Amino acid sequence: MNNGMNDRYTRGWQKLKEIDGDAGEKVIESLKDIAPDLGRYTIEFPFGDVYSREGLDLKSREIATVAALSAMGNATPQLKVHINAALNVGCKPDEIVEVIIQISVYAGFPAALNAATVAKSVFIERGII
Amino acid sequence: MNNGMNDRYTRGWQKLKEIDGDAGEKVIESLKDIAPDLGRYTIEFPFGDVYSREGLDLKSREIATVAALSAMGNATPQLKVHINAALNVGCKPDEIVEVIIQISVYAGFPAALNAATVAKSVFIERGII
Amino acid sequence: MNNGMNDRYTRGWQKLKEIDGDAGEKVIESLKDIAPDLGRYTIEFPFGDVYSREGLDLKSREIATVAALSAMGNATPQLKVHINAALNVGCKPDEIVEVIIQISVYAGFPAALNAATVAKSVFIERGII
Amino acid sequence: MNNGMNDRYTRGWQKLKEIDGDAGEKVIESLKDIAPDLGRYTIEFPFGDVYSREGLDLKSREIATVAALSAMGNATPQLKVHINAALNVGCKPDEIVEVIIQISVYAGFPAALNAATVAKSVFIERGII
Amino acid sequence: MNNGMNDRYTRGWQKLKEIDGDAGEKVIESLKDIAPDLGRYTIEFPFGDVYSREGLDLKSREIATVAALSAMGNATPQLKVHINAALNVGCKPDEIVEVIIQISVYAGFPAALNAATVAKSVFIERGII
Amino acid sequence: MNNGMNDRYTRGWQKLKEIDGDAGEKVIESLKDIAPDLGRYTIEFPFGDVYSREGLDLKSREIATVAALSAMGNATPQLKVHINAALNVGCKPDEIVEVIIQISVYAGFPAALNAATVAKSVFIERGII
Repeated sequence: MNNGMNDRYTRGWQKLKEIDGDAGEKVIESLKDIAPDLGRYTIEFPFGDVYSREGLDLKSREIATVAALSAMGNATPQLKVHINAALNVGCKPDEIVEVIIQISVYAGFPAALNAATVAKSVFIERGII
Repeated sequence: MNNGMNDRYTRGWQKLKEIDGDAGEKVIESLKDIAPDLGRYTIEFPFGDVYSREGLDLKSREIATVAALSAMGNATPQLKVHINAALNVGCKPDEIVEVIIQISVYAGFPAALNAATVAKSVFIERGII
Repeated sequence: MNNGMNDRYTRGWQKLKEIDGDAGEKVIESLKDIAPDLGRYTIEFPFGDVYSREGLDLKSREIATVAALSAMGNATPQLKVHINAALNVGCKPDEIVEVIIQISVYAGFPAALNAATVAKSVFIERGII
Repeated sequence: MNNGMNDRYTRGWQKLKEIDGDAGEKVIESLKDIAPDLGRYTIEFPFGDVYSREGLDLKSREIATVAALSAMGNATPQLKVHINAALNVGCKPDEIVEVIIQISVYAGFPAALNAATVAKSVFIERGII
Repeated sequence: MNNGMNDRYTRGWQKLKEIDGDAGEKVIESLKDIAPDLGRYTIEFPFGDVYSREGLDLKSREIATVAALSAMGNATPQLKVHINAALNVGCKPDEIVEVIIQISVYAGFPAALNAATVAKSVFIERGII
Repeated sequence: MNNGMNDRYTRGWQKLKEIDGDAGEKVIESLKDIAPDLGRYTIEFPFGDVYSREGLDLKSREIATVAALSAMGNATPQLKVHINAALNVGCKPDEIVEVIIQISVYAGFPAALNAATVAKSVFIERGII
């Protein structure tokens, strides 16, 4: 039995649920009939390996993720998941907005404006605004 | 006299020096004979406006910037400035490495590997490794 | 009172209305409950500072913006605003189409085809085609 | 009469239909009232010139295209056309999934997950899953 | 004999020399032993087809190209060629700088700063600054 | 002892050497003093997991990788490694050139031209041209 892989999968699945909540589970679920192994890797590498690392707190990790996804501008579904995730791990709504404002400097105003639109939809869904 | 603009410029210049140190000044200096107004805007908007905001500590701001620039992968000189800046405002070298490792998840391994190369050059220059 | 900031804001707001029309105001409006300062910066820096500059006519500025947004390919709402803006400041529909055709050379056919789809929707809304 | 151009157009049109099927024709059709010359170039250069070349089989060409569009992440309509095209020229569904999994390495998990979503919609439309 | 192709090639070659000058010829030359057909296509499609079109003057075409390449940020050699090209077809140095400043709004300050560095090297080579 | 991880590492290391040769080992070596875990992940996930999968031959995998990296345009060191890798696993030089020519369609001529420059340097180093 490949216990090493199972460890990563189990640890990753717990981390995914802790950080992304239901939204993360839905992503994995939606991959089942098209690319289940991509679902498994998503659990094992990002969550079982990377988010399980020490050396940087989860709040800072989500700030990094929201910044990266906002700057890239081509990953709207993931940005939505991770604005939720940032809130889940303790970021304040205002801190997320600050990250998005800062992206206007590095990736331009369209990237920041589009990320703000995603944040707005999340904040409304969660009753924050 | 346009005191408003002068306030932003003065505040931005102080912030630029606090965060980026000499590297920031060199960027502004190098713009003098080609696009001095771009240098002025760089001081006023990113530093006088954005980095001077409350609501997110400078350490988190630099984590966001290092993440965004690593993910974009086409801004090597700025990534170098901001890995230095992250260290200047209190990020530990290991925290910067964690941000870069995390970028492998969102923007792929080449983005992370190239950011690690930049971080390595900064850490060597500063005698960290 | 910070007159300098007010000057930039007032000038920017006029410029935004001149160039983007109602679409620009809606962008600012939509930011009110999520990131009002991002709305203010959008008025002050892009419009109060940059579009208010001399040295390049507004028609050429919009050609540059349509080209940049078409090439980036991840800013559809902004591309729509600026295809309208280009028409507002005097670009002929055919000139906008020429810019988009040229983008096929620099950013590939998908970028050009997707920009053409946006242009088509604008031209239909305005009764041009 | 410009026989050279006609040759490229005729060859390209056949190639477009062979590879992209109806979806390709619809793209050209949709350009008719906005940028017909962009439609003509799309037939002549990508299909009349490039896809008509020897030296690489069509299956490998579509693997390259699916990989490139998945990695770029800002060309969803074209990715859909070319996942269909890959199937049209003999790629097995599993091979397309493998290409998408591999993109997680080079362009990150969001790019791979979003490409998997597109592949899923194509596979459902074609009754593959 | 394929006169159609020869027409595009001849027209493209003249246009390439008119716009890009020696720098364009060097690009084609450097492709000779690796991908001569890519060199031929570069002459035929961008220059024989697109830059030879009416409907937009060459100055506006180069403004669009400099804007697109500055925003993309991953095409430094081509940006250098086209800042030269813009000057060759009548853009004033200040107009090129204005385009680059404007890119800070749409693609962020790093894109604008790196484009300014390229422009500076061109302006120095040509004795403009 | 975590045998599962060791399996992936061992398998990945063999795959890395088979595909990338010395160049791959150098990448891992260069990470030792800055981010050794990123080196370990590079072996485990891309090579131990993904390249070790069945369902797509290595030649097609490298075609996908060269296409993706050429299109992204911001990963020159990795593109060089993988043009070598493509040759290592049986791609003919002409097939690599075909992939690069095809990228001109999807990501534009600058991306294709810059990839051709990288291919040329590899082909010269290996005595192919």
